[in-house]
Amino acid sequence: MMVLNTLVLKITGKAFDEGPWLLEKYVSILKTLSEKYKLVVITGGGRLARHYIDMARNIGVVSNYWLDLIGIDVSRLNALLLIASMEGRAYPKPYESLSELLSALPYSNVLVAGGLIPGQSTASVAVQSAEAVGARVLYYFSAIGYVYDKDPVKHVDAQPFKEITATRLKEILAQKQLPGEYALIDDKALDMAVRSGIEIRLIFFKHPEKIFESLNGLNPGTRILPE
Amino acid sequence: MMVLNTLVLKITGKAFDEGPWLLEKYVSILKTLSEKYKLVVITGGGRLARHYIDMARNIGVVSNYWLDLIGIDVSRLNALLLIASMEGRAYPKPYESLSELLSALPYSNVLVAGGLIPGQSTASVAVQSAEAVGARVLYYFSAIGYVYDKDPVKHVDAQPFKEITATRLKEILAQKQLPGEYALIDDKALDMAVRSGIEIRLIFFKHPEKIFESLNGLNPGTRILPE
Amino acid sequence: MMVLNTLVLKITGKAFDEGPWLLEKYVSILKTLSEKYKLVVITGGGRLARHYIDMARNIGVVSNYWLDLIGIDVSRLNALLLIASMEGRAYPKPYESLSELLSALPYSNVLVAGGLIPGQSTASVAVQSAEAVGARVLYYFSAIGYVYDKDPVKHVDAQPFKEITATRLKEILAQKQLPGEYALIDDKALDMAVRSGIEIRLIFFKHPEKIFESLNGLNPGTRILPE
Amino acid sequence: MMVLNTLVLKITGKAFDEGPWLLEKYVSILKTLSEKYKLVVITGGGRLARHYIDMARNIGVVSNYWLDLIGIDVSRLNALLLIASMEGRAYPKPYESLSELLSALPYSNVLVAGGLIPGQSTASVAVQSAEAVGARVLYYFSAIGYVYDKDPVKHVDAQPFKEITATRLKEILAQKQLPGEYALIDDKALDMAVRSGIEIRLIFFKHPEKIFESLNGLNPGTRILPE
Amino acid sequence: MMVLNTLVLKITGKAFDEGPWLLEKYVSILKTLSEKYKLVVITGGGRLARHYIDMARNIGVVSNYWLDLIGIDVSRLNALLLIASMEGRAYPKPYESLSELLSALPYSNVLVAGGLIPGQSTASVAVQSAEAVGARVLYYFSAIGYVYDKDPVKHVDAQPFKEITATRLKEILAQKQLPGEYALIDDKALDMAVRSGIEIRLIFFKHPEKIFESLNGLNPGTRILPE
Amino acid sequence: MMVLNTLVLKITGKAFDEGPWLLEKYVSILKTLSEKYKLVVITGGGRLARHYIDMARNIGVVSNYWLDLIGIDVSRLNALLLIASMEGRAYPKPYESLSELLSALPYSNVLVAGGLIPGQSTASVAVQSAEAVGARVLYYFSAIGYVYDKDPVKHVDAQPFKEITATRLKEILAQKQLPGEYALIDDKALDMAVRSGIEIRLIFFKHPEKIFESLNGLNPGTRILPE
Repeated sequence: MMVLNTLVLKITGKAFDEGPWLLEKYVSILKTLSEKYKLVVITGGGRLARHYIDMARNIGVVSNYWLDLIGIDVSRLNALLLIASMEGRAYPKPYESLSELLSALPYSNVLVAGGLIPGQSTASVAVQSAEAVGARVLYYFSAIGYVYDKDPVKHVDAQPFKEITATRLKEILAQKQLPGEYALIDDKALDMAVRSGIEIRLIFFKHPEKIFESLNGLNPGTRILPE
Repeated sequence: MMVLNTLVLKITGKAFDEGPWLLEKYVSILKTLSEKYKLVVITGGGRLARHYIDMARNIGVVSNYWLDLIGIDVSRLNALLLIASMEGRAYPKPYESLSELLSALPYSNVLVAGGLIPGQSTASVAVQSAEAVGARVLYYFSAIGYVYDKDPVKHVDAQPFKEITATRLKEILAQKQLPGEYALIDDKALDMAVRSGIEIRLIFFKHPEKIFESLNGLNPGTRILPE
Repeated sequence: MMVLNTLVLKITGKAFDEGPWLLEKYVSILKTLSEKYKLVVITGGGRLARHYIDMARNIGVVSNYWLDLIGIDVSRLNALLLIASMEGRAYPKPYESLSELLSALPYSNVLVAGGLIPGQSTASVAVQSAEAVGARVLYYFSAIGYVYDKDPVKHVDAQPFKEITATRLKEILAQKQLPGEYALIDDKALDMAVRSGIEIRLIFFKHPEKIFESLNGLNPGTRILPE
Repeated sequence: MMVLNTLVLKITGKAFDEGPWLLEKYVSILKTLSEKYKLVVITGGGRLARHYIDMARNIGVVSNYWLDLIGIDVSRLNALLLIASMEGRAYPKPYESLSELLSALPYSNVLVAGGLIPGQSTASVAVQSAEAVGARVLYYFSAIGYVYDKDPVKHVDAQPFKEITATRLKEILAQKQLPGEYALIDDKALDMAVRSGIEIRLIFFKHPEKIFESLNGLNPGTRILPE
Repeated sequence: MMVLNTLVLKITGKAFDEGPWLLEKYVSILKTLSEKYKLVVITGGGRLARHYIDMARNIGVVSNYWLDLIGIDVSRLNALLLIASMEGRAYPKPYESLSELLSALPYSNVLVAGGLIPGQSTASVAVQSAEAVGARVLYYFSAIGYVYDKDPVKHVDAQPFKEITATRLKEILAQKQLPGEYALIDDKALDMAVRSGIEIRLIFFKHPEKIFESLNGLNPGTRILPE
Repeated sequence: MMVLNTLVLKITGKAFDEGPWLLEKYVSILKTLSEKYKLVVITGGGRLARHYIDMARNIGVVSNYWLDLIGIDVSRLNALLLIASMEGRAYPKPYESLSELLSALPYSNVLVAGGLIPGQSTASVAVQSAEAVGARVLYYFSAIGYVYDKDPVKHVDAQPFKEITATRLKEILAQKQLPGEYALIDDKALDMAVRSGIEIRLIFFKHPEKIFESLNGLNPGTRILPE
């Protein structure tokens, strides 16, 4: 039995807010990739997650445990949508622990998850999944395609990085120089990437086809080095 | 330990489409009821379920198994929202089988589920749950508050029934004399109600407080008799 | 890895009432088929199920939930008997949900189930299993080998159908023109077959070897078309 | 919350071969006992277990693992029958591990199991269950009501013991002086009773009401002392 | 049923390295507390965890996923030891997810866990557990009894804090002014305490009886305020 | 897909007491074997198990159920250590039942377990695992490399057996002629080996490489014949 290499992909929840045109792209790309790789895919919750969390707050939910859990549930709904689209190629439900991921990996071509536990971003889930399966690279379809040296919305001269260390990125995020910085990635996910030597490659979420450039040795976004 | 009676309630998915004002009502009513009864609550998927199912179709999903599963997942998201709002009174996740319902019943004040398996409506889940816990009545917060003798949208002289047998209702549904008849209830759910002698009491979903009338012996909607 | 086609087979519980001579036939046929196909097999409960349900009624059980559960348990016992006979080819326990079926399908050559949930016939389980694995045909080893135009026990001129639509069969079943009609198939199973385009091929349960005729393009019983 | 004492009861599979008259007795006694005690009940497989194991052998099953598993499944079917008869008092499925027993104990009045794992008799399950819940006595409704000093079928002067040590009973069993001695109890179960100081009180299975004598300090069968 | 308040307690793994004299103290205190409170207890891995992780490294394990998992397993072994000592008062296995914690909470007097998932300290598990059960205080039996303004091993004039904000503690930890600072607490745990308003009360692990002072309104260690 | 033969191996807990030099040997041998065989490995608890059981006794645990459970937990910790060392070849957690073993067998190259249930030695687990997977031989890395005719520690003229029947070995063990006889094997494990025709091949645990001799038809220890 030929053993396939494993690609780990994180898809921002925003990709599910855009409607079928973008999801169709993702589905087509995942199918193509699944012929040459095992795929581990982590989906975010997007606007719907925020809507349900707001609704929960409005009806009196204050516990972060429950608010997080609702967000996780939406991200799993997005995961299920992708699973359904894989025409039998995928493990038939969102994996809910890393142990389930590893158990199913030997006989599944595509595995998809949303969040795993409260208090942890889907970015962290993606890095942990990469760590568990022994992948060295995480392909990260994110709301912005690059890390910039300042907020590109406010500064016309903001410059994108081709490469940046995770340590430096943490400093930038701490200074809140980026818009929607949470949407990009959080410290915990970066720390874990560093400890396990996992490089994160940003790709703008509206152009998922750029992953083929990345697989061909090009650099279509920012590479976050695990240093 | 005083044993509480068990109420089984079905809440149409539409209740989750209206925004917080209506959900707040439900939350408040459920909290009040939970002081005197054990509650088993079944939630529908509503507009969001249809949206995700449409999205799935748009990206190529044709299998009814998967489309149903996506609908179930949304109904469970709604169930989780209610669970979160119960401030620790509820079993902490949507129950996913009748066996789980019965296992958790002795130590849970409120149990909430969405759909259970593909090919089965949440109305059927509600009747089955009533059967499993031995309840004789199902309170049914539905998109319409009454069964009518003809389509009330088209016929100004349509008359609501105070009572109707399940058998007669099946005939009416078969003649498609009702608008959105699926949204009301399906044959399978009615058959199961008949076999186990469960009366279904319709209550208009925008007036959930009418359940107190029903508990006080009044009849604020249509009673569907298990005959 | 060559991917095998999947055959879905329903075996009436009566097959387990006849003693080893008939079961040996089934075991031999399943082993032969498992060399060319993945097999999904659904077993009924037969006389033993009725005996235990009667015994339950006699000791005071009235809830349909529990009576159904006992019937399911017997059908699973029959499933386990077949699993044990497969000499390691089979998934080692009756699958208890469609999700478990799909999870195990990639690495199992033979999967066997009895009933899944109360309120649902094993015929429905068979159709749902076919739907979940994407099969277009359900081979149905049933107590009678054909659908007839009238009760063949009472009418010597009763004619068997070579083909019949599911819709027409529902009408015949509604008129109770068939003996032991429940034993054949129920409305819910037929509805689900129609919605997912699954053809049901009846084969008389005492001649399971006729499935080879059916696989070779012949028609040894009645074909129930999903229309 | 008043904590109830826990009684552990083993019921031979033969009790399920006699038909409803005897089972009704057991059901009535269990209901009565459940008002004053928590009950842990272990059921055997009886004639049906032997029938299915024979059938399995006849269709080619040789592995003891699978033959045992079939026997366990029948004993669980018997367990389910008792659970169904308890009218909601019982944990709703046969417990399948001692961990499940202990998890469910705090909120269940009646817990029922058949076999747990291949290679282990239901007698051993009963002793282990007693050990897990900390009970000092196992009430044992068995095919014979007494241990005799020789085979009472062959010897008219055979004398029943009022008390016997487990060690002495092992010697008697080793000499095969008893009819159907396996049906009584096996060495492993006795060893475990000794190590944990559990007394086994035999009661003839056709007179389950004699347990009340035993609970009142009388000795209606043989007491097997854990020495 | 009187509802008990819930105390959440974290016990450093070092407590398991000292031998029975200290564990006996903990067991006695937990039993006493369990008469007035529900207890949620989180145990660390201690020296044994480090020993097994070292052994794993020595035989070639490099993945942090697996090294963390081994550490978690040891912390669960310590959890099991406490569970065993609770004489039936405790949920009978270490809970492995927050959902399991919440499911078991209504009917368990004592719940114990070690680590939950790789990449997360047992300190984080403790804060998350407090968040999930809605506790406002975490009692934290740690290797050092106070936070100091400088390393007390190197500086004789180091002063202990009676109170410190979590934010300030993070700065101190960042400057590595404390010995064995990891053993105290990590940033992620502190962040989560802040977001959910959970105060952490340090108690020196060799004097667990000081928790009674704390419960009586005294302050026997450092209070870490969620600010 | 070429089907691999399955080897079942029992490793005494003592192998984990010796430090990395010996474990490295085992890891290397398991990796080599896993290229030609499927491996099922059962690990004991060793000195650490005894230490934790002693600690439990010292803090007041008297129930054999709990003491056994602690021993099982340590044996599973040793199992996890081996799993971690297999670099992704192994099923990712200790299997906890024979059903889990059989479910995972088709897609796992290496499966590892410690104990399964209280009241059962890891030797019994090994024999049962062999029975479940249909293996005829159990390779048994034990604290002593041979069965002797008398205690070799006390008698300089003690002679090792090249072969011995399980029945004869039981007699020798009953006479307690062997040192640490429990550490060798218990009656229950031998009984089960006999009933299922499983030969046990002793190999001295400090020389695990001798398994290659055994696989090549030599006899580096004592063969325990299932008679």
